[in-house]
Amino acid sequence: MFTPAISRFPVPSLKDMPDDIRERILGVQEKSGFVPNVFLVLAHRPDEFRAFFAYHDALMEKDGGLTKAEREMIVVATSAANQCQYCVVAHGAILRIRAKNPLIADQIAANYRKADITPRQTAMLDFAMKASRAAETVSDPDFAEMKRHGFSDDDIWDVAAISAFFGLSNRIANVTSMRPNEEFYLLGRLPKQG
Amino acid sequence: MFTPAISRFPVPSLKDMPDDIRERILGVQEKSGFVPNVFLVLAHRPDEFRAFFAYHDALMEKDGGLTKAEREMIVVATSAANQCQYCVVAHGAILRIRAKNPLIADQIAANYRKADITPRQTAMLDFAMKASRAAETVSDPDFAEMKRHGFSDDDIWDVAAISAFFGLSNRIANVTSMRPNEEFYLLGRLPKQG
Amino acid sequence: MFTPAISRFPVPSLKDMPDDIRERILGVQEKSGFVPNVFLVLAHRPDEFRAFFAYHDALMEKDGGLTKAEREMIVVATSAANQCQYCVVAHGAILRIRAKNPLIADQIAANYRKADITPRQTAMLDFAMKASRAAETVSDPDFAEMKRHGFSDDDIWDVAAISAFFGLSNRIANVTSMRPNEEFYLLGRLPKQG
Amino acid sequence: MFTPAISRFPVPSLKDMPDDIRERILGVQEKSGFVPNVFLVLAHRPDEFRAFFAYHDALMEKDGGLTKAEREMIVVATSAANQCQYCVVAHGAILRIRAKNPLIADQIAANYRKADITPRQTAMLDFAMKASRAAETVSDPDFAEMKRHGFSDDDIWDVAAISAFFGLSNRIANVTSMRPNEEFYLLGRLPKQG
Amino acid sequence: MFTPAISRFPVPSLKDMPDDIRERILGVQEKSGFVPNVFLVLAHRPDEFRAFFAYHDALMEKDGGLTKAEREMIVVATSAANQCQYCVVAHGAILRIRAKNPLIADQIAANYRKADITPRQTAMLDFAMKASRAAETVSDPDFAEMKRHGFSDDDIWDVAAISAFFGLSNRIANVTSMRPNEEFYLLGRLPKQG
Amino acid sequence: MFTPAISRFPVPSLKDMPDDIRERILGVQEKSGFVPNVFLVLAHRPDEFRAFFAYHDALMEKDGGLTKAEREMIVVATSAANQCQYCVVAHGAILRIRAKNPLIADQIAANYRKADITPRQTAMLDFAMKASRAAETVSDPDFAEMKRHGFSDDDIWDVAAISAFFGLSNRIANVTSMRPNEEFYLLGRLPKQG
Repeated sequence: MFTPAISRFPVPSLKDMPDDIRERILGVQEKSGFVPNVFLVLAHRPDEFRAFFAYHDALMEKDGGLTKAEREMIVVATSAANQCQYCVVAHGAILRIRAKNPLIADQIAANYRKADITPRQTAMLDFAMKASRAAETVSDPDFAEMKRHGFSDDDIWDVAAISAFFGLSNRIANVTSMRPNEEFYLLGRLPKQG
Repeated sequence: MFTPAISRFPVPSLKDMPDDIRERILGVQEKSGFVPNVFLVLAHRPDEFRAFFAYHDALMEKDGGLTKAEREMIVVATSAANQCQYCVVAHGAILRIRAKNPLIADQIAANYRKADITPRQTAMLDFAMKASRAAETVSDPDFAEMKRHGFSDDDIWDVAAISAFFGLSNRIANVTSMRPNEEFYLLGRLPKQG
Repeated sequence: MFTPAISRFPVPSLKDMPDDIRERILGVQEKSGFVPNVFLVLAHRPDEFRAFFAYHDALMEKDGGLTKAEREMIVVATSAANQCQYCVVAHGAILRIRAKNPLIADQIAANYRKADITPRQTAMLDFAMKASRAAETVSDPDFAEMKRHGFSDDDIWDVAAISAFFGLSNRIANVTSMRPNEEFYLLGRLPKQG
Repeated sequence: MFTPAISRFPVPSLKDMPDDIRERILGVQEKSGFVPNVFLVLAHRPDEFRAFFAYHDALMEKDGGLTKAEREMIVVATSAANQCQYCVVAHGAILRIRAKNPLIADQIAANYRKADITPRQTAMLDFAMKASRAAETVSDPDFAEMKRHGFSDDDIWDVAAISAFFGLSNRIANVTSMRPNEEFYLLGRLPKQG
Repeated sequence: MFTPAISRFPVPSLKDMPDDIRERILGVQEKSGFVPNVFLVLAHRPDEFRAFFAYHDALMEKDGGLTKAEREMIVVATSAANQCQYCVVAHGAILRIRAKNPLIADQIAANYRKADITPRQTAMLDFAMKASRAAETVSDPDFAEMKRHGFSDDDIWDVAAISAFFGLSNRIANVTSMRPNEEFYLLGRLPKQG
Repeated sequence: MFTPAISRFPVPSLKDMPDDIRERILGVQEKSGFVPNVFLVLAHRPDEFRAFFAYHDALMEKDGGLTKAEREMIVVATSAANQCQYCVVAHGAILRIRAKNPLIADQIAANYRKADITPRQTAMLDFAMKASRAAETVSDPDFAEMKRHGFSDDDIWDVAAISAFFGLSNRIANVTSMRPNEEFYLLGRLPKQG
C-alpha cells in the first residue's frame, strides 16, 4: 500500500536517532497514541530538533495570563495566514481538545474575526496577526489596545513570541512539505473526545 | 439557551417566505436533514435568492469535464483564499462527501498545493486562484497550461465561473456574517458517512 | 474588414439561441440601438445567462435608498479596481447617462476619492471597495460609518451585493476577454445625450 | 457659479508668475485653446515648474524608437496603475489624438493587456509596469524580452524614464488633488478631432 | 584590475560631455573629492541630466520648514522602501553628514519607525511613505496630522515632492543598475568626518 | 546623560540572571568587547533565551555547504525584508567581518539583487526570500533551481531554516523595539578591522 512521504527530506528511523530524541518521541507516542510527524521530520536535524521543542515548550507549556487554549488559537490563526497545512491540521486538533470545543479550530482557521471567541481573544489574534504580517509597524497604540483588554506586558510578549515561533514552524513545514498525521483530522471533534 | 445569529440582517421565518423559496428550503431540509443557513440568510432577498441558486445549480449540478468533487475543490480553495468561514465549512463538508475522502477539504483549505490531489487538479486550482485573485492577468499561457492537462475550453470556463461565483458568495457571506450550521463540521469525516 | 473577437469562447448566432435569450437580446437591441457584447458572450451558456441577468436585474433595477446612478458608481469603481475593461467602458457609459454627467465615470474609474461626488457617496464607495478587496475584515465600524451617512441596513446589503456581483462579472469578462462595444465609448459624453 | 478648486495649494494668477512661466503658459493656451491645470498648479513652485517641464519635454518631445503615441501609452498605463485622475484624463486625451484612435486610452486605462495594441506594445507596457511597481526586480530577462521585441537599449531607457517621471507626476497630482480640465474628457473622441 | 560597471547603459567620458555638464561634474568633484556615479550615469542623457539636477536642487537646496537633514531622511526612507541601493548608500552618507549623526541613516534605512528621530519627524516620514506607496489615498486627515505636528502647507508639498522625486530617481537607479561609489559607505561614520 | 532603552520590556541586570545565562553573556563580552543587546533583551525570558541561542548556534555555527558569510547574507537579506533594525545593523556587522568585505552588508540590505555576490549566492537569497515571504508556494522548481546552482538538500534546509529562524528573531526584535548597540555600526568597515 502506498504511504505518502511525510517530508521532502530524509526521515531517520527511531533506532538511528540520538537517545534523547528517541526517548522524547517514545514519550509522546505513549501519551498521544501516535507520533506527530513534526517529531520525525525534525529528527533529521537533532540540534534543531532540541532547540525547536525547547522553544515550543517554553512558550506553550508555561503558565501565565493566556490559557493553553488561547495559545493554540494564536497558533491556528498564524498558521492559517501562512497557509501551513501541517500546523493548521495538527494544532487545530490540539485547540479543539484544549478548548473542549469541536468547532473553534475550523472557525479560526477560516476567519478568526467570525469565530465564537471573546472580544479580548479577537484583540489577541489581531495583535498576533500584526506581529506575524507587519511586525515592523507594531507600536504604542497596539500595546495600548492589548492592555485595554487586560493583557499584561508579559502576556503581550507571549502572543508575539508564539506567533513568531509558529511563523518559523510554518515556513519549515511548508519547505519540507511536512504532512499531517491522519489521526489529527478527527481529534476533538466527537463528544467523547472533547 | 443562547443561539448565535446566523446573519447580521433579518432572517425571515419559513411562513413569511414566498412559496417557491419555502418549497426549495423544505426540499433541502428533507434531503439533507437540516437547512443550510445560506438558504435562510439569502431568503431576506427573494429575487437575489432565486438568481443565486439558479446560478449555483447551473455551475455545480451540470455534467462536464469536471467531477462534482473537483467543482467543490474549487469552491473550498477559493473560499479559503477569501477567508469565508461559511463557505469553507459548508463546502468542505460537501467536498468530503463528494470525494469520499475525509481529509481532502482540510488539506485544500489550508494549502491546496500540499493536498492529496493530482497534478491536473493542482493546475485546475492554480487557474481558479489566478481567476480569483488576478483575473486581469489571465492570458494565453494560462489557457495553454490548462489544455496541457486535458481541460477543454468549456472546462476552463467552468473553473473560472465557479471561482468567480463563489467569490461573490464569499463576499456576501463575509458582509452578512453568515454562520455555518454546526452540522457541517462533522459531515463526511466518519467512515460510515464517507 | 477585420473585426476583433468579442470573446475567447464561441459566441452563438442569434438563431441558435434559446427563444427566451434571443428575445431578451432583441429587446435590448431595440431599446439601446445595439446589443452589448455581454449578452452575446454569456449566451454561450444559457443557464448562466439567465441567472446572471436575473441577478443583475434584482440588484440594479430595484428601488431603494440608492439611486440608479449610485448603483452604477459602485459598478464602475469595483470594475476599475478589478481592471475589467468591458465593465469600466460599458457601465461608465450607463453611469454617465444615469447621472446626466459626462465626467463622472472617468473620474470614478481613475480615482473615486477625487471624483465630484458627495461625502455620502464616497463612504458608499469606500464600503464597496472594502467588500470587494477585503470582505473578510468588514465589521461593525464599517456598518456604523455607513449608517452615519444615512444608509439603511438594506442599502448596505445593496452596496455589498452590487460590488460582489460585479466582482463576478469582472472576473468572467477578464477570463473571456470580453470586448466592449465601440458604441459605449461615446455614450453620455455629448450634451444632447446627457 | 461654483468652480471646483484645481489644487489643494495656492494657485498664482498669471500676472503674479515669473515671466518665463507666464509665457510658456500663454503659449500652451494659444496652441491648445486652454491651459491644462498642471501648468497652473505647478506654477506655485516656479523652480519645480521649470524642472518638471524640462524633464517632460526631454522624454516626451524627443525622437527615437518609440512613437509619440507609444510614449503616451506608457503615461496612461502608469497613471492608471497609480490611480492618478488628472494624468489618466489629460494624457488619455493626448493619447487619443496622437494615436488617432478614440478608443485606445480608455482601453489602456482599464486594462492594457486587453487593449488593441501590438504584442510589442504590450511588452513595452509590461516593462513600464514592472519599472513602476517593482523596479528593484528588473533584471536581465526583462531587458532580453524587450530586445526580442526590437527595442534598443535607448528605447528601454525611454520606457523606464517615462514611467518613472510620470510616477512622480502621479504622486504630486494625487497629493495636490490636481483637477483635470473638463476640456480633456472629450478631446480626440469625435471623428473630426482625431 | 576588475572594475564593476556603474550602469547597464553607456557612460560618456568627461571629454565627450556637453560643457555645462562637464563643468557641473568637475565642480562636484572639487567639492566632494570624487564624482558620485549618478552624475556619470545620467550624463548619457544630457537633457534629462539637466532637468534631473535642476529638480533635485529645487527640492533639496532650498530653505524652508524642513532642515536639510530632514530632507535627506525622506530620501533615505523612500529609497529603502523602493530598494534602491544607490540612493540608500549615497544619501545615507549625506544624511549622516547633514545630521552629524553616524547612526541615523542605517536606522532609517532599516525601519524609520525605530530611529532616533522626533515624533514630528516620524509623522513626516509616515506622510512621505504614504505619498510614495499609496498617494491615491492621501486625503484631509493626512494633512491634518501633518499640521498637528507644525508642518505648513508648503512643508507638506516639500515632503511629498521629495518623496516623489526620489521615487523617480530610485526607479531609474534600479533599471540602470546604478552602482554606488565606494566612498559613500564610510562617509560620516567617523568622528572627525561628522 | 540619556541612554535610550534597548527594549520595551524589562531588562534584567547581570546579577539577577540565571548562572548559565550570565556566563554566556560574560563569554560573549569577553570575546566581542561588548554585549550585543539581543542577549540582554532575551534574558527577560530565560527559557526562551536558551532555546533561541541553541537554535541560533545549530544553524549558524555548523559546517556544511554554506560558508559562514553566506549564512549571514541570508540573515541580512531576510532582516531587511522584515524591516528589522536590530538584525540588519548587528548582522550587517557580522557579515562584513565574516566576508572581509566592508560593502557587502549595505548592498544586500538595500537590494541583494544588485550586490557584489555570485549568481549562486543570488539564487540562495532568492530561495531564502521565497521561504520568508511565500513559503506556502515553495515547490519542486525552486528546489531544482537551487540544485542547478550546486546546493545539496541539506544546504537548502539550511537556507530555509536560517531565513525562518531570523524571521522569528525579526518579529521579536520589532515587537520589543530591540535597539542595536552602537558598536555594530562601524564594525568591519575599516581596513584594519576587515
